[in-house]
Parts: sequence; C-alpha cells; structure tokens
Amino acid sequence: MKEVDYMAVADKAMKQIKKGAFLTVRSGEKLNTMTIGWATIGFVWKKPIFMIAVRDSRHTFGIIEEAVDFTVSVPSGDMKAAVMFCGTKSGRDYDKFKECRLNTADGRKTASPIIDIPGIHFECRIVFKAPMDPVYLDQTYEDLYPEKDYHTLYFGEILDCYEF
Amino acid sequence: MKEVDYMAVADKAMKQIKKGAFLTVRSGEKLNTMTIGWATIGFVWKKPIFMIAVRDSRHTFGIIEEAVDFTVSVPSGDMKAAVMFCGTKSGRDYDKFKECRLNTADGRKTASPIIDIPGIHFECRIVFKAPMDPVYLDQTYEDLYPEKDYHTLYFGEILDCYEF
Repeated sequence: MKEVDYMAVADKAMKQIKKGAFLTVRSGEKLNTMTIGWATIGFVWKKPIFMIAVRDSRHTFGIIEEAVDFTVSVPSGDMKAAVMFCGTKSGRDYDKFKECRLNTADGRKTASPIIDIPGIHFECRIVFKAPMDPVYLDQTYEDLYPEKDYHTLYFGEILDCYEF
Repeated sequence: MKEVDYMAVADKAMKQIKKGAFLTVRSGEKLNTMTIGWATIGFVWKKPIFMIAVRDSRHTFGIIEEAVDFTVSVPSGDMKAAVMFCGTKSGRDYDKFKECRLNTADGRKTASPIIDIPGIHFECRIVFKAPMDPVYLDQTYEDLYPEKDYHTLYFGEILDCYEF
C-alpha cells in the first residue's frame, strides 16, 4: 500500500470512476456501498476536496445524511459485475457486500470502511453539502431527473489517499 | 495552440490554480477578471465539469450571476504581480486589464474571453450553481468567512480546453 497524491492520481481515478467506483458510507450500525460514476476533485477552502453526488431516492442517502465521512474505492481490476449490481440494486433489498463478495477494510482515518480491492482509495470527511435546487439547473440537464430525485452534492475533505 | 484533455491536465492546472489563476466573466457590456485559488474538476451529469467559487461580496459576483459562461486561464509563466493585483483589487475600482496589461482573446465557444497568456485555458458554460448554505458547512471552515460573505459555487460544463 502506498500513499499517493490525490491530484496526481485524479486523471487515472476519473477514467475509472466514469466506468464505476464504490462509494461506501457507514453511520453507526448502518453501512452501504453504491456505484458512482460522477465526481469532481480539487482544492477548495484551503483543503483537498472530493465531491460526490447522491440522489435523495437512494438507500445510501439516508445513511450519508447521518454520516460524518465517506470513502471512494476506485477499482483497478475488472469489477464490472459488482459495479453493475451496486449501481442497480438497493441496499434496502440486498446485502451488497455478501451478494458481490465485497470485503471491507477499516478506514485509516474514517469511520466508513473502504472496499478491500486493488485500486485507489479516498477517505473523506464531509465538510459541506448542497442539496441541488433545480431552479439553478440548466434546462438541458433536466432529463437526468425524470423522477425529480435530485442529487445532494457532498464535499469531502480528503484525509487520506492511497493505492494498493 | 493545442487541444488538451481536461483531466490529463488537471494535476498540472490545479498546482498553478492554488497559486492563482484568472476567472474571466463577461455579461453584455460588463467584463471582469479575478484571481481564483480554488476549483474542482471532474465529470458530473455525464459532462466534464469545472467548479469555481465566487463570494457574493465580489464585483465578479454581480457579473457571473447574469452571465451564461466563464473562462479560467491558468498561467504557465510568472504572473505573480497580476495574480496579486486581480486577487486583492476590485473591478469596481480598477480596470484590471489596463492596470495589469492583460489582453483578452475571444473565447472559442464562450461569450467570456480568455486572458491571452501562455497556459491552460478552460471555456465553461454555467450549468448549475449552488449558493453556499452555511448551515451545511463544517464549523472548522467558518473562519474562512468572518464577513459571512459565502461563496456561490458555479458548475461549468467544459466546452473547450486548450494550451498555448
């Protein structure tokens, strides 16, 4: 396992995130992972920041709303089946970890665990969120929300970034 | 001038943005540029996205609120003096372009021009914004806002990214 600079790996990470990465969130006894395909990475509030988006219809939404942190595990190997399952099935109906044989590993700096797979891992403390106000959304993007289940944008301060 | 992949240059661009880059916005007759040091870059809503933040106390705020696009010009050469001036002086009091001898060049795809300097240039169409609600901001970040002049986060779809 090696520490990596979050921006130095941003290009590689984003290429894979577009195909699917795992957002994992724990709040107390509640734990879930879901596939994300969107993210932004950068530097805001004098801190390294990782932004992810969760629709309010998601099982993960109820967990992350009560959580203090999240992790993003970006697989380097072929995880197509798990990515598909965790992106289309709900943690309300399935234990995704069991179904996809995904093991977790403790976060080094977060209560939320990572998915124990080869790849790049981001551990992030939630420092800001912005529920999307559709009034401010471009009209041409509205077709992404036929159910009006808009995303909340979560901004995580990157506490740790490593690869294995 | 060469087209570049926005994520391939993200690491290099962010290194410089942290030291200062130029956010340039035109709305009708109104035009201003200001120094930014914060940004995130990634992929959201199935599009390449560049996020910037503008405090509501800024002269640029009044312009970008009426604008449809913005550009970010990331200098490759030494622009310390202009970066300092454009980050500390207001467009209300100075013609920054004249004071700093900054020439603009027409945007290829935006109404907002770029700053005509060697570096990386992002042309972005505003597709979403989120005025920061301090209720959702981490307490430890509050000291960045002694005047309570919170940022509005602007999300730009990257229409063009090039270097010269």
